[in-house]
Parts: sequence; structure tokens; C-alpha cells
Amino acid sequence: MITVLKPNTTEQQRDHLISWFKTQGIEVHLSVGSEYTVLGLVGDTNHLDVSLVESLSIVDSVKRVSEPYKQCSRKFHPDDSVIDIDGVKIGGGNFAIIAGPCSVESEEQLTTIAERVKESGANMLRGGAFKPRTSPYAFQGLRGDGIELLLKAKEKTGLPIVTELMDASHLPLFKDVDVIQVGARNMQNFELLKEVGKFGKPVLLKRGLANTLNELLMSAEYILAQGNPNVILCERGIRTFETATRNTLDISAVPMLHEMTHLPVIVDPSHASGIAKLVPPMSMAAAACGADGLMIEVHNDPINALCDGAQSLTPEQFDDLSKKIATIRTVF
Amino acid sequence: MITVLKPNTTEQQRDHLISWFKTQGIEVHLSVGSEYTVLGLVGDTNHLDVSLVESLSIVDSVKRVSEPYKQCSRKFHPDDSVIDIDGVKIGGGNFAIIAGPCSVESEEQLTTIAERVKESGANMLRGGAFKPRTSPYAFQGLRGDGIELLLKAKEKTGLPIVTELMDASHLPLFKDVDVIQVGARNMQNFELLKEVGKFGKPVLLKRGLANTLNELLMSAEYILAQGNPNVILCERGIRTFETATRNTLDISAVPMLHEMTHLPVIVDPSHASGIAKLVPPMSMAAAACGADGLMIEVHNDPINALCDGAQSLTPEQFDDLSKKIATIRTVF
Amino acid sequence: MITVLKPNTTEQQRDHLISWFKTQGIEVHLSVGSEYTVLGLVGDTNHLDVSLVESLSIVDSVKRVSEPYKQCSRKFHPDDSVIDIDGVKIGGGNFAIIAGPCSVESEEQLTTIAERVKESGANMLRGGAFKPRTSPYAFQGLRGDGIELLLKAKEKTGLPIVTELMDASHLPLFKDVDVIQVGARNMQNFELLKEVGKFGKPVLLKRGLANTLNELLMSAEYILAQGNPNVILCERGIRTFETATRNTLDISAVPMLHEMTHLPVIVDPSHASGIAKLVPPMSMAAAACGADGLMIEVHNDPINALCDGAQSLTPEQFDDLSKKIATIRTVF
Amino acid sequence: MITVLKPNTTEQQRDHLISWFKTQGIEVHLSVGSEYTVLGLVGDTNHLDVSLVESLSIVDSVKRVSEPYKQCSRKFHPDDSVIDIDGVKIGGGNFAIIAGPCSVESEEQLTTIAERVKESGANMLRGGAFKPRTSPYAFQGLRGDGIELLLKAKEKTGLPIVTELMDASHLPLFKDVDVIQVGARNMQNFELLKEVGKFGKPVLLKRGLANTLNELLMSAEYILAQGNPNVILCERGIRTFETATRNTLDISAVPMLHEMTHLPVIVDPSHASGIAKLVPPMSMAAAACGADGLMIEVHNDPINALCDGAQSLTPEQFDDLSKKIATIRTVF
Repeated sequence: MITVLKPNTTEQQRDHLISWFKTQGIEVHLSVGSEYTVLGLVGDTNHLDVSLVESLSIVDSVKRVSEPYKQCSRKFHPDDSVIDIDGVKIGGGNFAIIAGPCSVESEEQLTTIAERVKESGANMLRGGAFKPRTSPYAFQGLRGDGIELLLKAKEKTGLPIVTELMDASHLPLFKDVDVIQVGARNMQNFELLKEVGKFGKPVLLKRGLANTLNELLMSAEYILAQGNPNVILCERGIRTFETATRNTLDISAVPMLHEMTHLPVIVDPSHASGIAKLVPPMSMAAAACGADGLMIEVHNDPINALCDGAQSLTPEQFDDLSKKIATIRTVF
Repeated sequence: MITVLKPNTTEQQRDHLISWFKTQGIEVHLSVGSEYTVLGLVGDTNHLDVSLVESLSIVDSVKRVSEPYKQCSRKFHPDDSVIDIDGVKIGGGNFAIIAGPCSVESEEQLTTIAERVKESGANMLRGGAFKPRTSPYAFQGLRGDGIELLLKAKEKTGLPIVTELMDASHLPLFKDVDVIQVGARNMQNFELLKEVGKFGKPVLLKRGLANTLNELLMSAEYILAQGNPNVILCERGIRTFETATRNTLDISAVPMLHEMTHLPVIVDPSHASGIAKLVPPMSMAAAACGADGLMIEVHNDPINALCDGAQSLTPEQFDDLSKKIATIRTVF
Repeated sequence: MITVLKPNTTEQQRDHLISWFKTQGIEVHLSVGSEYTVLGLVGDTNHLDVSLVESLSIVDSVKRVSEPYKQCSRKFHPDDSVIDIDGVKIGGGNFAIIAGPCSVESEEQLTTIAERVKESGANMLRGGAFKPRTSPYAFQGLRGDGIELLLKAKEKTGLPIVTELMDASHLPLFKDVDVIQVGARNMQNFELLKEVGKFGKPVLLKRGLANTLNELLMSAEYILAQGNPNVILCERGIRTFETATRNTLDISAVPMLHEMTHLPVIVDPSHASGIAKLVPPMSMAAAACGADGLMIEVHNDPINALCDGAQSLTPEQFDDLSKKIATIRTVF
Repeated sequence: MITVLKPNTTEQQRDHLISWFKTQGIEVHLSVGSEYTVLGLVGDTNHLDVSLVESLSIVDSVKRVSEPYKQCSRKFHPDDSVIDIDGVKIGGGNFAIIAGPCSVESEEQLTTIAERVKESGANMLRGGAFKPRTSPYAFQGLRGDGIELLLKAKEKTGLPIVTELMDASHLPLFKDVDVIQVGARNMQNFELLKEVGKFGKPVLLKRGLANTLNELLMSAEYILAQGNPNVILCERGIRTFETATRNTLDISAVPMLHEMTHLPVIVDPSHASGIAKLVPPMSMAAAACGADGLMIEVHNDPINALCDGAQSLTPEQFDDLSKKIATIRTVF
């Protein structure tokens, strides 16, 4: 880590800061230029409170030379991680298509969709049992019953299931779930991250609406630090000033994360745009820039069918998309 | 609620949508113009999934005429809420100054600061026991022991205490805490909101880094819906493109929230800017535009003292600021 | 246009507003619901100041049913526009690859690059003569001399040239330029837009760093309204909170603009990311989601060559990318 | 300037970069640490293309120790600049209130408002003659005639006038205008900045909707670099994800700019919020945090009067606000 001091820092202030670093077990390599002073910090700087150091009035800036994340870093693990989910692989050239309805509604709904998406090439099933809802008065999901229906659909189709966890106290209900999803709003719910880290099942970690890639990796590090290496990262759109789409899909997150980390990176185009017509082109873009998978909403319920709309695809649209994705992936 | 249909919607599509609304127990008032069709929805639309309706291909837009929040709304409760915290009032003309260190470190540190800020006019004590940290390797706070130290400081000074809760499973440790803080990162941790709603203690709810005022009120509604009316809202800066300050203090949130809700609104200028020099002017701005209180970091530790910096004020700076705030508040 | 009034609007206020609309030549269709009142405005509402109406205290919201842009709209021109640039077509299935150096530096530099990119499949040449620079002390480009060098490179290679205009007073220098670029910072320089509209040459209009798609189309409308239909839209990244990349490429702008307008839409991945390694995956994503072209920086100067870096590609990297793009475009 | 190299940079790459810096006339001070290499650059680095250096693959980051702006910097000019506008001073403790209608409409309208705001304490008159409009079909202002009306109002009231310039070719019409406003959309119209720099009149420079404070100062530097020291900076709201207000007023820009520069800083609360009710609290916040002035829209036209709304204040509201501002300013 490098700390650059402001030009008008006195020697006394500088030496006090150096002494303080030493009390933290950090050695300091001093480099004085004509206009600047740089402190090179050597030792374990992970427990340092960077924002405290940055906010000191004599400090111009603090630069980490090594990233604050370790186990997530591509440097410490140059090869792509490949995660095995009950036989379905993701990462390192293995492409996963996770499809299913937004919410689990009934056995019939779920099984019908699961069978259709499997035929079209999906290799995992998604469906919301616990639903994070902005309004306390809105439907909060079938909860435990929803998980039961997902398990039945797995029994029929063999597709591993992915579903969202909203509170660590619900973990006992997730013992047969294949992949535990941590939603965007909980990306920095650090106590929850520790618990899914201890639980040991593969985790699909969604990027928060206003979180940087660095913060996403720090949240993944919370899980890996508990001994659970099976984390899948998911880009699902960030919040910007643009209102034509619900969120702005940050597609460059895919190759950028591939530079930074060995963990697989997938894209959720359904939540990013909120518009069904944009799901196919965004899925194709994600595949073309090297994503390790997609998570796509597919429905068969009448209000959607009627209007040919919403953010979910019909099974027919999904089938057509799957074929195009396969063509695009021949580039790799 | 009003649903505007797109110009090219067929009668059949329109009638299907109207039928669907009826199955949801909602009556529809149809208004057909030369270029547009408007559906006026009458009945309890709170359980409707607005984003689903919005995303239908025939729908141009959905407008709520009444807000989605009820108990928070100024319309349903025209007078300012006044919250009594062990004798200290906030709201309705009562101004609260909550001061204290960022983290609880030791009994001596906390008591010294508590006594100093009380002398200068603070009427509540803040201090972090459970610390949300981006890095799993960073100090996570004194946790339960920190709460013990806060309670001792309260015993000595009489100042009610405010401290952050990170997980519902820690609630038993908070039984003697006066105000439970829900941090920005947990603003949409809906399960946590339900639990603090049930717990019944006053809640200080911080706005998330990328959450709208509407979403902040919906999160407050989660707490009120559990029968707990004692919610204090806190603006603490939002995430924008500007990097000169850590976050951008959205000062217009104060008068805007006062239009929307009866709940008290305070400002945390320390976290918003991350720079000590900006804390006094931002505090004065907050007081001048009608905030119901301030939450300010004050420290006495050597690294800060040395550098006259960081985001915390010294007790002397805090004392000076308190006097200016008092002058500004004579405008009201 | 629809104006929704607030629930507590009095009849007198409503009638005054209706009278005012009538003085503006607009007929009003009144629809009164139990909770809301909707005014349907009929007639030419284009000259109405929407932000004025929106800001009235009795107005809840204003919705345009028809878009504020006309000539740009897909509704008024359902087929894709195809623009012919000295024989090179763009739009309606015709894909353009515009490549070249960031700045024009010398005849040798430009000709070498132009010949290399032509071999690899580029069909237009880009190069900055007038350079918008944040600092007044930075190199401002070769200006008129740069345009001369571009024209020489065109003579040698036959590639039509694209270069940026910064002020209408420079237009006489652009009489032989094939495509006039209006940069992101000038997207809402309305006087400049009028002048390039009158000048008549094809215009490449870049989206501003913080402009919505709607605003981009309104700026295009300024050009079309002067009788110049040859506008190419360019997504080049927007400003968000993320700092890992220089800007955030808003890839969903491509299919979204294709819904809204008939004008061709290209992507500039070099400026969006600011990182050479991201240019190929972002280019491939753009091609996969249906962009009508790409604008890519290619260099051969020693500092870049040395470091294998910057935001420009080497001719070899560009050649490799062109082949992948061709494969991806077989999907269409 | 400091350049930090990435850990895996080879000596050969490093030496090539050092050689290149030398060809640019810059001396390099090399500092090699165990994990990092820092190049301290000595000499005139103003003409260096920082974004080019930053984008090199071997470069981790580039830090300017001295700011890229010179004449604007508080370091080079520690005392506040005081600008004299036909006898009205701004900066260094002198507070300016600039009030008037959004657009100049008629002689009667302008004179009536001018007289009223003068009585209430305004010391400059604003009014739009050239209007930047998103739509080409919207009213573009009275243009030259509007300036004539402003000059007549000055004659009657003695208030110096402020009005917006949209294109350098209109400058001859501005020869008797007291302060030339450069609007947010033209903040980085560098050719325009050069021309108003040469013209010599005081300039009111508005911050762009998505521009950083650093960029605002670089744009001011364009004007100062032409020998014109009379620049007033104006914060008018930035574009963020929040939609409750039209823009987000970045109030911390005021004290932050006062740290960075000696130029006066004013606030435009009318454009920032777009809501009349927010103008008084935002004005009071601006005054309380040390702004050097305010720019406020005041109207007397019937549609506004009727609805008691819009973003403009009535003369009565403005009068009440002026008194409160005076009280708040007693703190200083």
C-alpha cells in the first residue's frame, strides 16, 4: 500500500504518522520527492482502515498496490474456478443457462416451465420462494412452500435449483437447495454473507445496485474467507440516471471481473432491463463478451402471455434465444 | 392508480387487462382519448405488483395517485411526529444532536467523549459496537462488549444511546439500547426491518447509498406496519459520479421528506463527506433547511488529533459548531 | 399529452389551467376519477414547456403519449434509415467499422494506420484534428492541418473520413470531410446542432456522458429539423459511480434506440472503457446485440506499442477482432 | 505528478517509459519498493496527456500532486477573489442575490419583476434571452430583443444584468451585458470558453450536470488562461438516480470549492430542484454553508400565480426569503 502525503505536510506530522503505522505492525519505506512524499507500507495492511487513513488531513491519497481481496483474486489463483453444481459445471469454458419464473406460484406452473426450459437447453432452474419486496403490503412469496415446489420440480426434471435467501434464520429450509442466491439488496449484508460462507453450498452473489466491482469482490471474499470457494458472481444492472431501462446493464463488468478474479461471472438481463424485448439482445451481448452463464426469467402465465410483454420471455422466445447463444459461443 | 396504455393497444388486449385487474379485486374506470387510453384503478392497489404492470408491452406507464406508503404519509398524519427517547424529543420543532465516536474503543475513550459532547449541547450519544466493514479481514467492532460500554457511558452522562444493529439475531443484546440504528447497507434488508418493527424500540433508519426517497419511506413503512411508529429518517449522502467527496449529501432530501412524511428527518454530515472540514458547513446547511437533528462523529484519539483531520471533529470544533447551529435555528 | 392533477386540486384551479391550455391552442379532454383528474391534451403540444407544466403545484405528472421527437421516431419512419457515405452504407443491415488513431499526428502515422485497418476490414477512417481537452494547457490537436492529413489518407486508401467539429466557425474547413462528428460534450450545444443540420453532411452524434436516450434523440431532431436526415447515433459510455472503467458502456442503449428510432446506432468501445483489453469483448457485445457499427481506436506509436496497452488496439489486435465480429454477425 | 507502476512491470518496460517521459522534457525520480515502483515526475507536466499515461498497461495509477489548474487554485492565490460588477461586489464576504424571471418575455414583465426584487434586496437581475431548449420545436427565447429589454430594465433599476450566451457568434450582442452566463450544457464547450475569456467581461460559469468539481475548475481555467480573472462559479444541481427532485443539489460543492479555489461560488436552487417549495430551504442551506451568492427565479406571470407553483418564487415569497437569508448570514 502506498500513502501519498500532501505537499505542505511538516516533518513532525509525517513522523507521527509513520510512528502510528509502526504501532499497527507495518513497516514504512519513505520516499521524498521535490513536490511529494510517498510512504510505501510493507506488511499485512489488510486490517488497516483505509478510509481512516485517506481522511487524514495530511494525506493526499492512498493506493493499494495489492488488491484488498485475496482469495478471490486472479493473482492468487490464475486458473478459472469451475464450480460443480450437482453435475452441472460453470466457469472455465462451461456455460450455464439458469431459467425459470420470477416467482414460484404453483406446482403446475413451475413444472411446466421447468420442462420447457430444459428442452430448450437450460441446465438449471430458478424461481423465487422468498421475495424481497419494496412494499410491506406486497406478496412476500410462498417462502418454505415455494422451496418444496422447487424441489419437486428438480425431482421431475433433474435440473439443479437456484433460489434466494433473505435471512440467515431461514437457512435450515435451504439444505436441499443447490445454489443459494444472495440478492442485490443484501450484497453488503455482511452477517448474512458469513452465514452462507459457513453453510458451504454454492452461492450466486448478485451485484448491488450501486456497488463497485471492488465491493462485489470484497463481499465474495466474506464467503471465501469462511472456507466456501463456490461463489458465482452475477451482474444484474446498476442504478444510473437513465430511465429508459429499469437499470443499466454494466456489460463491461464481465471482462473486467474476469481480469480481477477467477470466479465465474454470469449476467441477469431480465432484471437489468425490465423489458422483455431487451432480454434477447442483452443475453447475446453477455455471451459474446465472455460471460460464463445467463439467468433468464421465463413465464407461462396468462397476463404475460396476453400482452407478449413484461420482463419474462415466453418459452418460445427462450428457445429461439438459446439457439442464437449457441452460435455466438462458437467464437470461443 | 392510473395506467396509461400505449396508442396501438387493441380493444381485445385492453379488455383482457381490465379483466385481470378485476380478478385482483380492482375496479377500472376507462377513459378513452383520441391518442390515449387511461385506466383509473379504484380499490386497494397496494398489493399490486406495479413493476409487473409497468413491464407489460401494452402499458405506457403507471402512476400512483396515492403514494404506496400509507402510515408514513403526511396525508394520513398531517402533524409532525414527535419521538420521545428517554426524555429527549425529536421532531415537531425539537432538534436532536447525536454525537460520539465512530467506533466504541474503550471505556475511557467513550466516557471522555460523551462528557465533552454533552457539555457542548449534544443530547444523545452515538458509537459503533457492531461495525459493517467492506473487508472480512477488518476489525468488526467490539460487538456485545461495545454495547456494555455504551450503557456505562449512558449511566454516567444520562445521554440516551444510539447504535447500529446488523442482524436480527443480535437483538437480545439491544434490549437497553435507546435507539436502534439500521445502516445504509441494510435499508432494504426487509427481514431485518420486520424484526426491528416488532421489537418496538425507536429506530434510526439510514437512507441507502442508491435509494430514492420513495424507497426510504417504503422501508420505514415496513417498520410502521409492524406497529412501531418511532422511526427517525437519516440522510447520509448518496453515491454519484463526484469523487471530491466520499458521497454526495442530498440536502434537498430534508425539505422533500418533510413534504412527504410526518417522520423526523436528521442528517449525518460525517459519513456523507468523509472530510472533517466539510462537517461544520454541511451541519449548518442541514440546520438551515429545517432538519430535525444531526448525527456527528467526534473523537479524541491520537491519530486524528495529530492530523487535525479525518471525518471526525475534535471536541473543540464540535463545541464551536453547536453554537453556530443554535444561531441558525433562531430563523425558525 | 396527458396531465394528471393532484387529488386536492380545486375546480377553480383546474379550470384556470384548462383555460391556459386553450390560450396555447390546445384542446383539453377532461376525465374525472374518484381519486384523480386527468387532462388529455389534444393538438400540437410540441411547443409546450413540459417542465413548466410539470412544476405547477397542482400537477402530479405529465406524460407524453407521443414522443417529443418526430422525424427521428420509428413510428413516423418504420424502416431503418440507411446512410450512404461516399459509397459506404450504414444501417439496415449494413455494418460499418470506423477505425483510426485517437489524434492525427503526422502523415506517416495516419497513412500507415489507415492502410492497416483497411486491410483488416475497416470501411471508414477516424482521427481527431480538433481535440476537446479538459485542460487549456494540453495539446489542442493539429486542427486545420489535421484535416488536410485526413484528406490525404483518404486519397491513398479511399476510406471516407470521420472527424470531430468543435465550433460552427470551423465548418469551412470541413467541406471535404465525409462525416462530421459532434462530440459527447457538445451533444446539447444546440447552436452547433443547428449549424451541422444546415451544412447537410452526414453527422455522427455522440451521446453525452449524462444524457438520456430521449435527450440524444431530441438532439438528433435538431439536425433533422434543419433538413439533414443523415444522423448516426453513437453510444460511448455514460458517467456512473463505477470507477473500474472510465465510463460505463450502456449496451442496452443499442436495442432500446432501435425500438425508438430508425437512425443507425454504433458503439465506441474505446472511449467507453479507456482500457485496451476491454475493447475486443465490448466490440463483440455491441455486434451481438445488433449495433450498426463500431468506432475503434487503432494506433502504431511507440509508447503504446511498448506497453501493449492504452485504450487503442494494435493493428494485429484489430485484425483479430474484425474476424470475430464477422462470425458473430452471422447470427443476423 | 506520481506514476505508480504495476507490480509485474519489467525493468525494460519501466526504462522505456522513463525514456519517453524524458523526451517530453520531464525528469523522473525513481523509487523502487518491495511491491511497487513509483515514478516521481518533475517539470511541467501540464501538457502531459494523463489519460494516455493512465491507460498504459504497466501503469497502476497516476496522481497529480499539484492540481492541473493553476490560476484558479487557492494555492496560487490564497485570498478570496472579489469581483466588481458595475459596483456590486461578490466574493470575500460580499453576498450577491441575482433574481429575475426564467425567460425575458416583455418589457412590462421584466421591469415589474426587476423593481420588486430590487426592493426585496436583490442586487443583480437575471433573465434568459437566448434559451437552451431540449426540443428544436420549443420557444428559443427573444434572443437579441431580450437583451435589449434587459438593458432597459437595468436603466430603470440600476441592477447589473446577467444573461446566458449560447454561441460565440452572438458575442457582439453582449457588449453591454454585465455578466455573461455560460450554461451547464456548455461547461465543456471549450471554444466558447476561450472566446468569453478573450471578451473580458465577468463570466458566471455553471457546473455541468455530470461534471466533477475538478472539471468545473479546469473549465474556469480556460477563461482565466485568456487573461480574464472574473469568473463566478455556480452549483446548480447534478444528475443522479433520484427522481423526486429534478436534479440533486450538491451543496457540499460550496465549501469544497472554497478549499480548492479563490473564485466566488454561488448556488442556483431554482434549477436544481425544479420545485418552488424547495427553493427557500435550499437557499437558506446555501447561505448557511458559506455560498457567496444565490441566483433565484422570481416570476409574476398568471399561470404561476394561479397555481402558486413551478420552480419560480412569487415576489412575496422572495421578499420573505431575503429576510431569512440576512439572519442566517449573521453567523459569518
